[in-house]
Amino acid sequence: MPAPVTLAQIVSRLGGRVVGEAQTLIRQVGSLERAQPDQITFFASPRYKAMLVATRAGAVVLAAEAEALTARPRIVCENPYAYFARVSRILNPSDAPQPGIHPSAQVAASARVPASARIEAGAVIGGNAVLGERVWIGAGCVIEDGAAIDDDSRLYASVVVNRDCRIGARAILHSGVVIGADGFGVAPDSGRWIKVPQIGRVLIGDDVEIGANTTIDRGAIDDTVIEDGVKLDNQIQIGHNCRIGAHTAMAGFSGVAGSTDIGKHCTIGAAAVILGHLRLVDHVDVSAGTVISRSIHQAGTYTGMFPFDDNASWARNTAQVRRLSELARRLRDLEKEVLKGKKNG
Amino acid sequence: MPAPVTLAQIVSRLGGRVVGEAQTLIRQVGSLERAQPDQITFFASPRYKAMLVATRAGAVVLAAEAEALTARPRIVCENPYAYFARVSRILNPSDAPQPGIHPSAQVAASARVPASARIEAGAVIGGNAVLGERVWIGAGCVIEDGAAIDDDSRLYASVVVNRDCRIGARAILHSGVVIGADGFGVAPDSGRWIKVPQIGRVLIGDDVEIGANTTIDRGAIDDTVIEDGVKLDNQIQIGHNCRIGAHTAMAGFSGVAGSTDIGKHCTIGAAAVILGHLRLVDHVDVSAGTVISRSIHQAGTYTGMFPFDDNASWARNTAQVRRLSELARRLRDLEKEVLKGKKNG
Amino acid sequence: MPAPVTLAQIVSRLGGRVVGEAQTLIRQVGSLERAQPDQITFFASPRYKAMLVATRAGAVVLAAEAEALTARPRIVCENPYAYFARVSRILNPSDAPQPGIHPSAQVAASARVPASARIEAGAVIGGNAVLGERVWIGAGCVIEDGAAIDDDSRLYASVVVNRDCRIGARAILHSGVVIGADGFGVAPDSGRWIKVPQIGRVLIGDDVEIGANTTIDRGAIDDTVIEDGVKLDNQIQIGHNCRIGAHTAMAGFSGVAGSTDIGKHCTIGAAAVILGHLRLVDHVDVSAGTVISRSIHQAGTYTGMFPFDDNASWARNTAQVRRLSELARRLRDLEKEVLKGKKNG
Repeated sequence: MPAPVTLAQIVSRLGGRVVGEAQTLIRQVGSLERAQPDQITFFASPRYKAMLVATRAGAVVLAAEAEALTARPRIVCENPYAYFARVSRILNPSDAPQPGIHPSAQVAASARVPASARIEAGAVIGGNAVLGERVWIGAGCVIEDGAAIDDDSRLYASVVVNRDCRIGARAILHSGVVIGADGFGVAPDSGRWIKVPQIGRVLIGDDVEIGANTTIDRGAIDDTVIEDGVKLDNQIQIGHNCRIGAHTAMAGFSGVAGSTDIGKHCTIGAAAVILGHLRLVDHVDVSAGTVISRSIHQAGTYTGMFPFDDNASWARNTAQVRRLSELARRLRDLEKEVLKGKKNG
Repeated sequence: MPAPVTLAQIVSRLGGRVVGEAQTLIRQVGSLERAQPDQITFFASPRYKAMLVATRAGAVVLAAEAEALTARPRIVCENPYAYFARVSRILNPSDAPQPGIHPSAQVAASARVPASARIEAGAVIGGNAVLGERVWIGAGCVIEDGAAIDDDSRLYASVVVNRDCRIGARAILHSGVVIGADGFGVAPDSGRWIKVPQIGRVLIGDDVEIGANTTIDRGAIDDTVIEDGVKLDNQIQIGHNCRIGAHTAMAGFSGVAGSTDIGKHCTIGAAAVILGHLRLVDHVDVSAGTVISRSIHQAGTYTGMFPFDDNASWARNTAQVRRLSELARRLRDLEKEVLKGKKNG
Repeated sequence: MPAPVTLAQIVSRLGGRVVGEAQTLIRQVGSLERAQPDQITFFASPRYKAMLVATRAGAVVLAAEAEALTARPRIVCENPYAYFARVSRILNPSDAPQPGIHPSAQVAASARVPASARIEAGAVIGGNAVLGERVWIGAGCVIEDGAAIDDDSRLYASVVVNRDCRIGARAILHSGVVIGADGFGVAPDSGRWIKVPQIGRVLIGDDVEIGANTTIDRGAIDDTVIEDGVKLDNQIQIGHNCRIGAHTAMAGFSGVAGSTDIGKHCTIGAAAVILGHLRLVDHVDVSAGTVISRSIHQAGTYTGMFPFDDNASWARNTAQVRRLSELARRLRDLEKEVLKGKKNG
């Protein structure tokens, strides 16, 4: 546990200004709902105003426009959620890895593993694999031949990085991630499928986080590329030869089919799917549950979620979806009829 | 293989009544379609009436209203599927674990592992982890520091339980499950994402089953909670700080985004997604393929699945979906026109 | 690296005809966009005509109708993509496994492992498991008791095959695959769920490829069956007691709920879901993002994807989806009104 800090100490490190008792002592972060008097919380959405009023937190991070909503000690800043994230990192610094190779780990003689790295029980490091300084390989991970992982990256237990793939610095890969399995390349031939060898790699930039059980396939010919600062949630699938632009974030269950190019600073909602061979420009936001079936050439928000309803209403309305073109035709006919009547009338 | 049982023995243990030969000997359960004369099957849906007539099963479990549909020896009971499940558990009792720690497993000195537990090859048990009586840890599982798993729980091969998470009694976790990876907490800050430390845990109640490759994230600040009796299928994603109420069942590919609270006794269909920061009351049923984008305050069934069609009909009808508001406007205009004509007429 | 080949050598092995310099030397395959002068690429879609014109590839595989689109050395054939796949297999032959059992692998005494098999670090082979000739088991795989894997199959790192499951010859299973976890069989009983023991197996034919983190559940009573030549992408879920017919291909995130029977030569698009207890005949193509909720008795293409739009248009049109049956009723009323007016007029 790191030492507690005062609000004054926090603003001296992170900026912002204190309103109320600057010597308030903070030991941990907390949620609006459950924070204790020695914890700091944040307020970033008017939706939670009632919780702000009721909170028992010792201090609150908030924006200037919300400053008057509470009398508690508070830090006023421009981006309360990002500020809170920074406060939490002061109070909860990442563990530095205890260096060393567990005796049950299997490290190939030709692998390059610096003394500062940590390799946990049962992990396997292949031939000519290269680990950077302070890389932390969790229990049961498998790093195949020729793969490289740059400084300060952490792989939680049971991650697989296939041969020749590259992972940048400060990456976080959660358990069950598979980097560099073969892409889905099959060519139809007289009713059977012929496998297309997948000879590309996966290249991952710096500061990338990848959620549990997410899979990123190696390229068919060229490489699959994940640029700097990309954040991927759990259970995501990235097909072969995709590019995910820098600082794009994708929520759980979202997927990108093969050879699709997604721009920088995009957000892809939960369970959204981007089909193959498309291009999305920078700053595109795709809503949850949406299937993107054409390229998007204009920044903006795109949605294609079917609205839910109580089952009876849904059944009633959905029956009409299957008759929509007929409905449109009948409307057109009626328009003509009425227009004719008017002329004749 | 357990000893065969007669229908008379079954009803003496489970209730219900035998119609026909009570001494019929049963060795195993079977499907309506393929059961052998020494097997017992069940009939629970009128949809399978033809199969009931054709079955070669030695006996059938069914409800009173179906009693006359077959002349075979049968057990009449109130809930045939649940009754059948119980018969199958008599004929197929769960294996009790052979206690012992495989020599290739790595168990931290500070872990508490009772003599009745079984830890298979290559499993890793972290510092201060606590296992209950008869806990069965499959090959290659990783239980991180401080995690706790209660009596009679079974983890199949390659499950990961992260630090400090808690799993109740009689849990079944299938292969590839990841409990307690970091939630997807990133704060936007000048075009980049700042990681919010995820300091909560995952707390799982008793009698929970979790399917293969399902992921449940640890809380950002407070804990993620899975209550007693919850049943999760494969490939499910539960975001940070969710609560899944007791005895709720979720089908494959369904997901719940962060901070959503799902009530007790709900069912969530295959590939359904519940977005974040919502609340579903008890006894809500969500149909397959549905995205729930608002809180649900009323028990009932909710659906939002787009109806499929042959491709040509779909394309025709779908073209109109993009013009629906225009269609509605034209209808409104026409209504006015006709009304005016009527007044003038 | 295999020896380079000339176009003449390629056509003598694979058929087709060379147009241009038949002695052009090829060392590797390349993409239209990035191929080097010692690489061969292919052209299969008119969409990439501009790339064909610009390519620096040493040679191109294409169909007769595209023969005139480039002056580069080329191979003319009937199915350029399948031909290209074969060329790539000549230039990139699959690695033959270096036989042997890694000292850290755990192989049960009763397992049958031929001398030609390869078992990598930390893998676990259970009692009475049977491996065929040249089977390659990656690091950290777990093959449970009684499972069998036929000749020339390769399991990448961290695959789990549960007890008694069968995998045919020449299979490729990518990392994180789980074969034979329990199906989702729970019977409701007075507000709780009773587990139905899952006593079937998974039977997988020959020449099957299964993508990373895909799960195939064991049957509840009878077996789950994957026939010869099936190709499954990543993150797929196949429920208990399904049959996937021979040479069917399924894209990423697609899923099949329990007891559904899918015919031969079908294709299932990305994120498509086939609900349970259905039957799809042979040669059915399901588009991406589609939920199939009824059996399909006719070959053809079926789609049910909600069309995406810019968010504002989507919101406007979607509001009408919830009023579609009312809209249809109003149209009907208006038709009657106009008809009446006509009669009266």
